[in-house]
Amino acid sequence: MATASTNTYTVTGMTCGHCVSSVAEEIGKIDGVTSVNVDLASGRVEVTADAPIADADVAAAVDEAGYALA
Amino acid sequence: MATASTNTYTVTGMTCGHCVSSVAEEIGKIDGVTSVNVDLASGRVEVTADAPIADADVAAAVDEAGYALA
Repeated sequence: MATASTNTYTVTGMTCGHCVSSVAEEIGKIDGVTSVNVDLASGRVEVTADAPIADADVAAAVDEAGYALA
Repeated sequence: MATASTNTYTVTGMTCGHCVSSVAEEIGKIDGVTSVNVDLASGRVEVTADAPIADADVAAAVDEAGYALA
């Protein structure tokens, strides 16, 4: 892919693998996302997409999963 | 966490972000998983858990999502 954008966020409130699962699921639904990396311990979420994605879309997806961006 | 295990797998058949989402969701449900990284282009899935997880559990999760390990 010629154009790819990777952004890193911090999600608060994840306590177990099910939280990781929910966050990864919702973020993966954003148009254009091609890679999702969610780490429980740090709350770090790395999102790669084949076009720039809006932070607001990521915030909405995290909210939908039941968590919040730091 | 004193003990952590990271394993990498290749999943075939993923074509879009929704596939990434489904695979990440199912793998995140495995007991002990603390980090999931799913990449669409390569099919690479990296799973970190706070205890060793069985490849069979990962294969079952990927199957549940509708895909297969290479």
